Amino acid sequence: MLSSNRRKLLDVFRAADGKLVSGQEIADALECSRTAVWKHIEELKKAGFEIEAKRGSGYSIQPSEELFTEEMLYFRAKTEFIGQQVAFYKEVASTQIIAHQLVGEGAVDGTVVIADQQTAGKGRLARPWDSQKGTGIWMSTILRPNIPMQQVPQLTFIASLAVAEAIDNVTGLDAQIKWPNDLYIDKRKVCGVLTEMQAEAERVHAIIIGTGINVNQLEFPEELRDKATSLAILAGKTISRGALYGEIVVQLEKYYQLFLDQGFAPIKLLWEARAIPFQEKIVAKTLQGEIRGTVKGISDEGVLIVRDAVGVEHAIFSADISLG
Amino acid sequence: MLSSNRRKLLDVFRAADGKLVSGQEIADALECSRTAVWKHIEELKKAGFEIEAKRGSGYSIQPSEELFTEEMLYFRAKTEFIGQQVAFYKEVASTQIIAHQLVGEGAVDGTVVIADQQTAGKGRLARPWDSQKGTGIWMSTILRPNIPMQQVPQLTFIASLAVAEAIDNVTGLDAQIKWPNDLYIDKRKVCGVLTEMQAEAERVHAIIIGTGINVNQLEFPEELRDKATSLAILAGKTISRGALYGEIVVQLEKYYQLFLDQGFAPIKLLWEARAIPFQEKIVAKTLQGEIRGTVKGISDEGVLIVRDAVGVEHAIFSADISLG
Repeated sequence: MLSSNRRKLLDVFRAADGKLVSGQEIADALECSRTAVWKHIEELKKAGFEIEAKRGSGYSIQPSEELFTEEMLYFRAKTEFIGQQVAFYKEVASTQIIAHQLVGEGAVDGTVVIADQQTAGKGRLARPWDSQKGTGIWMSTILRPNIPMQQVPQLTFIASLAVAEAIDNVTGLDAQIKWPNDLYIDKRKVCGVLTEMQAEAERVHAIIIGTGINVNQLEFPEELRDKATSLAILAGKTISRGALYGEIVVQLEKYYQLFLDQGFAPIKLLWEARAIPFQEKIVAKTLQGEIRGTVKGISDEGVLIVRDAVGVEHAIFSADISLG
Repeated sequence: MLSSNRRKLLDVFRAADGKLVSGQEIADALECSRTAVWKHIEELKKAGFEIEAKRGSGYSIQPSEELFTEEMLYFRAKTEFIGQQVAFYKEVASTQIIAHQLVGEGAVDGTVVIADQQTAGKGRLARPWDSQKGTGIWMSTILRPNIPMQQVPQLTFIASLAVAEAIDNVTGLDAQIKWPNDLYIDKRKVCGVLTEMQAEAERVHAIIIGTGINVNQLEFPEELRDKATSLAILAGKTISRGALYGEIVVQLEKYYQLFLDQGFAPIKLLWEARAIPFQEKIVAKTLQGEIRGTVKGISDEGVLIVRDAVGVEHAIFSADISLG
């Protein structure tokens, strides 16, 4: 975790939004001498920040496209609480496992765990998730809303909505949501969302939203090639993971706040507008068998409503969906 | 965790149930020489086991009443899976926190975390739980049933039923259950059960049942004196925590297996028979206000049904109950 001084220094530059900050402003914020300011700036440079110094007027930081460190991720998060505590790892088994541990240790609302590589990344229903080094955004966000257990699936929709919008804003690509938790572009998967919780029988302690995004992979393992792709392949250029991360936490906080203020209704409308087009024929593979039909929408509990050929509506709690 | 050899050695004595075991039987089980058997027996003695050796016929172990160690707890657990993996700590913040971490690391069904002292024991709704050194049973049991989230509260009833029966069997005291999670004897609390879970929006990964039992305290802090008591105070003698633990895991496995085989219906009947007498007037303090009436029963979701003075039935999901 970042030192208090480092946080204050980054706060000053983050608030300036790329504009010049005078040495005196920094000295005031850190309650230190001008000489100490110079040392702090040198340390930031060593940490990989590109700092422009203008004699007599101050310093400015342009976020480095490449840099993907705890400090840069903190600097990128222009939010009130999501990402204001960030734990970055070069390599972990799974950010979800770390997040579960941090919940036990009392991690605050909005804490983000993020890794450059996962050796045992996991998807929905304990499936493995491919998370190669340096190519994607593998993150887990801890939220502590005061909601009953039954509403927890709604957080999956908030997260997929937020990530879809962040992808659009940063890359210009149009991400669509496939119920319950995947983002697709051009019929290939670019992102999965996994919502887990720790709860008592009566009360939710914490929700952990895992988000895996394929950003800069240029190749996929044989068995994924038809199903998965990356933003870089689709956009034809490298995408800054830092910039995308910064946009994700902003969008996530925006929609989460909307949910806390106004409930699930507005989220549901926005989500449905981004969902893979309704009226299309789908096949839902459930534990009980296959259901074929057209998607009518989602319920307030996040259940998928499918109408079959003879007009019967089915409520689907858990399934794999494919276009039929 | 115990070494494989130590487990095998304890398995042999556990199966013998206090009867003599020949040196050859031990040598066969551990695939070792008779000289090595002698060394193993010496090590068990050092670990605090009371071993009787009969020249020419073998060894026997009588469980020591006092001994409360990982090895003795393993030796006490005459079960198929609950307690067959046991992690014992002299002191932890909370066994629930450790259990959550072990779930992340893939702990198997039936793993027990147990401590001689908790420095930050927790009760329901994040309330602190007093757990002085060496006086109680503070344990967390990890279960991995394949059930939907809605059924998780049922595990609280299984656990309180099992612990009540174990207390009866070991001490002769008559423990009654107060919805949702407390055991009372003579109108004072002796045990609390806390059911937590890790789950996906669609799927339960693990349920962690925390159980705190006041066994050998002779005094309680001022503020608890009217509300809490211990089995030793009630029985007028020291109770073997090891013996009680051994009975708890047996009863817990029995009722959990009954639940897996036959569902919640038989558990519900047994639970209601042990519940603080129905027809008595109670006050339920909920977040929405107070409800006064008589308890009619529990629903399949673990909801308490209370009928008020004018005959209206209330479904209570979360409340503090007192006799009115």
